[in-house]
Amino acid sequence: MRASKLFFKTYKNDPGNADSRNHALLLRAGMVHQSGNGLFSFLPLGAKVLKKIQRIIEDEMDMAGAQQITVPLMSSKSLWDESGRWDVYGPELMRFQDRKNRLYALSPTAEETITDIVRKEKLSYKELPFTLYQVEHKFRDEVRPRFGLLRARQFLMKDGYSFGKDEKDMDKTYDEMYNAYSKICDKLELDYKACDADTGAIGGTGSAEFIVMTDAGEADVVYCSCGYAANVEKGISIVDRIEENQKDKELVLTEGKKTIKEVGGFLDKDPRQCLKSLMVIVDKELYMVMIRGDHELNECKLASTLKAQDVRQAKDEEMEKAGLIKGYIGPVDSKVKIIADTEATLVPNHVIGSNKKDYHITNGNYNKDWTASIVGDFRSANAGEKCVECSKPLKHMKGIEVGHIFKLGCKYSKSMKAMYIDEQGKDQHIFMGCYGIGVSRILASIVEQKHDDKGIVWPKSVAPFSANVVLANVKDEQQVSVATSIYEGLKGKGFDVMLDDRTVSAGFKFKDSDLIGIPYKIVVGKTLQDGKVEVVSRTGEQQLVDVDSACLL
Amino acid sequence: MRASKLFFKTYKNDPGNADSRNHALLLRAGMVHQSGNGLFSFLPLGAKVLKKIQRIIEDEMDMAGAQQITVPLMSSKSLWDESGRWDVYGPELMRFQDRKNRLYALSPTAEETITDIVRKEKLSYKELPFTLYQVEHKFRDEVRPRFGLLRARQFLMKDGYSFGKDEKDMDKTYDEMYNAYSKICDKLELDYKACDADTGAIGGTGSAEFIVMTDAGEADVVYCSCGYAANVEKGISIVDRIEENQKDKELVLTEGKKTIKEVGGFLDKDPRQCLKSLMVIVDKELYMVMIRGDHELNECKLASTLKAQDVRQAKDEEMEKAGLIKGYIGPVDSKVKIIADTEATLVPNHVIGSNKKDYHITNGNYNKDWTASIVGDFRSANAGEKCVECSKPLKHMKGIEVGHIFKLGCKYSKSMKAMYIDEQGKDQHIFMGCYGIGVSRILASIVEQKHDDKGIVWPKSVAPFSANVVLANVKDEQQVSVATSIYEGLKGKGFDVMLDDRTVSAGFKFKDSDLIGIPYKIVVGKTLQDGKVEVVSRTGEQQLVDVDSACLL
Repeated sequence: MRASKLFFKTYKNDPGNADSRNHALLLRAGMVHQSGNGLFSFLPLGAKVLKKIQRIIEDEMDMAGAQQITVPLMSSKSLWDESGRWDVYGPELMRFQDRKNRLYALSPTAEETITDIVRKEKLSYKELPFTLYQVEHKFRDEVRPRFGLLRARQFLMKDGYSFGKDEKDMDKTYDEMYNAYSKICDKLELDYKACDADTGAIGGTGSAEFIVMTDAGEADVVYCSCGYAANVEKGISIVDRIEENQKDKELVLTEGKKTIKEVGGFLDKDPRQCLKSLMVIVDKELYMVMIRGDHELNECKLASTLKAQDVRQAKDEEMEKAGLIKGYIGPVDSKVKIIADTEATLVPNHVIGSNKKDYHITNGNYNKDWTASIVGDFRSANAGEKCVECSKPLKHMKGIEVGHIFKLGCKYSKSMKAMYIDEQGKDQHIFMGCYGIGVSRILASIVEQKHDDKGIVWPKSVAPFSANVVLANVKDEQQVSVATSIYEGLKGKGFDVMLDDRTVSAGFKFKDSDLIGIPYKIVVGKTLQDGKVEVVSRTGEQQLVDVDSACLL
Repeated sequence: MRASKLFFKTYKNDPGNADSRNHALLLRAGMVHQSGNGLFSFLPLGAKVLKKIQRIIEDEMDMAGAQQITVPLMSSKSLWDESGRWDVYGPELMRFQDRKNRLYALSPTAEETITDIVRKEKLSYKELPFTLYQVEHKFRDEVRPRFGLLRARQFLMKDGYSFGKDEKDMDKTYDEMYNAYSKICDKLELDYKACDADTGAIGGTGSAEFIVMTDAGEADVVYCSCGYAANVEKGISIVDRIEENQKDKELVLTEGKKTIKEVGGFLDKDPRQCLKSLMVIVDKELYMVMIRGDHELNECKLASTLKAQDVRQAKDEEMEKAGLIKGYIGPVDSKVKIIADTEATLVPNHVIGSNKKDYHITNGNYNKDWTASIVGDFRSANAGEKCVECSKPLKHMKGIEVGHIFKLGCKYSKSMKAMYIDEQGKDQHIFMGCYGIGVSRILASIVEQKHDDKGIVWPKSVAPFSANVVLANVKDEQQVSVATSIYEGLKGKGFDVMLDDRTVSAGFKFKDSDLIGIPYKIVVGKTLQDGKVEVVSRTGEQQLVDVDSACLL
């Protein structure tokens, strides 16, 4: 493509409304246009990159045996009522009425529509398993769209759904998708982690997130050099424990001391030996959760174990109403149901609240002085703690979730009665999986991870052009002739190249090329006097090559 | 692809709700699924065809220098207010509110969004002309969705928009798009006509429709073997005229005779010599339109000449209110504004109403007895009339409009203030064109035009598979081995082939193959005993070939 014909306009400075690097750089490079709040148009350069990412995803899906379909973006309320999601989904679901007042959702995902197709075919066991996918626009009415393409209200996503006879079918497809997603991220040269992820209120037996590592992300990942990685919501670790002989509990005056730090310091106890008694509301019910003083409650794990929709800290008035004295709450003789993190139960001679103002109990011990009705892993794993797989210290990083794969089990097949006929002629529920990967989100993630002060550094697989033949002086006939012949030569070899033939300065062209992130500049300028052109990689390597060999790169 | 792994299920009989061949055959062939009223999902086979059509369109657009983009499907009311289309567009426009009660349209076309992008770039004359296009879902809330994919509420369409400095730029791009659309239709092996089309109330200086010829269509086309073709809304023709010396008008008693047939018969006048006085309401104003008795009023031409939004026949009460006596209305001394079709003005000694009950005027003559304030072409051209280009008799056919190209002029650039800076540094309005072609509509049109009693007959360029290797007996090891090796061989050569390895009868496989419309069956069955396989084309040609040469086809 000749730059003189290409619709793109670059900007030297970050636009005022940009809140992230992807937002600023994609606008500055003329790759996207903001068409509304959380709504982006992809201009020719951006659309090219988007399409290349889409092709890579489609190729990997096809190779994994998944079959491409496309379902309407309008999805009827009646289907969403069947799955229960019409009520559960919040205001993020875009809803609208047609001219006959029938209600529709603008699909954020397509479980309902696709399950409806499959159930109507009344399949036999012989026809399972299979996986369907589509690459379509999705909608989420974000309360506060932000971070450029990362939290947009319309975005392009590949969503896939597998249908199998049993857990074995489901697990096999899940593994195939896991591998396909890994290959996609590899082809895109992303620094990413495939992380154990929470399955949330849905239940299900497995879930993984593909997270692109960058401080610009909203996801927290704990990981280890051995390969272990997990979303912090799901991450586990090994922590040091205190070993002591159990003593008898004592009531001690701790007047005015309320926090772990205050009480621990006053009683000269390690924070690890002081337990937090946290009051939380789980789906409207009040619980006390016991956590070691140096640990943090992981509400996601709590919700997952209790299969709860909603977990939150109790408000002061809710605690008062239950007769609890803030700062002195404890599990001994508690009237509130107790949940304990495993590590909290293993701390000997710990400090806990006494449920009496200005007093704590010291040398408390689990099972001797108090018990819990539920014990489990309810703490977040932290950097520095030991990896459960190799005992090396865990690290922590921020990242952007670009993909999520999920074993759904029979959640949708049960609520929507999606059955197959087994070998005995009996109806059985289909085992499903769902697999999402963001196309526009990957594009934005690449920018977040791969940029410098000059602009974007696209990986070769998705760069808008493989190379940019920079014609330094459009009035120099020899330069014009050589640049054109290199451009035509590379095009003839099947390369997607740009010829910057605009009537602007060479310096301006170099800057644009780097801002747009084209991997190579082939500069046809003064060096032509020596029969040479200069090849400069986006990362700065320069070399002079003979004109004749410029097409052989 | 192995058929045993492919998600498709065929049906022997037309589904009860199918109202057209494309609807029935696409459902029966397992290519689409009806997901709602006017809403279709494309299953793997249908999605493959859709994608192949899309690629052909994209390739031609790219070759014509158009640049692909993608803009949000959500389009803000404020933009539509600027163009005026929010109010003009009827209930066909899907409208909805976001969580903050801001109004949006689900785009049926994207003039507003794309013009908004272009105007904000403040382009100079050097940066024009260019053409942007996208292939995206479009929405139209049809009052009665019907004819399968032809009148769906969501459909896939390529829409393009050109931006130029002047009429010359606009005309050049228009011609390029005309050629590109012709090439697309040629590649798809469509029997089509590129027709002169009406530019409607928009004005503009040119418009063409690409119409696929089939009785299943809703468009009427008049055309000639010389190449002339036009939508009947726009079509013109030469008609025989009556030559006579003008006589003096006479008032004659025609008691109870009201229609052309009745009055003409009674007065022994050729219907061509009797004029119709039609009362129409044009944008709320009453007009009398004079048309020759054997001609039909073309409301579209009337609307176009008068730049009217709405043209309709007057109701009886509206005529009565204006003091008109139905059956006897005429132009002499009329108080209503008169419009005349040119041919009506050229009929000597004609019969017209007298505006007096039970009386007509005979031997009336234009300019002598009455005149009109507007004279022009307001009649529809009919089959049998003479072609304006070669005088041969015109023919008439039905068809499906699949593409429409349009010179918009400055309609949107004026209402939305889309300017460029000219060589003198002055702001000038951009000249635009718009170019639509339906992807899903083409798919349906192909089915309407190319099917037989066995099923669909896809052209090779878009068939879901190039060939189907039919393994007649999956229990015959030799057949399995040969079929697999032919399948793998063809795949290795880059062909998109199917291997029907399902455990169903050979006859069932043949029927499915023809229903789905695969161009060739390569049957690996009993002829294998003689070292042969049978190659059967979808149109019935059969040949026996050596196993070894089956991959060379």
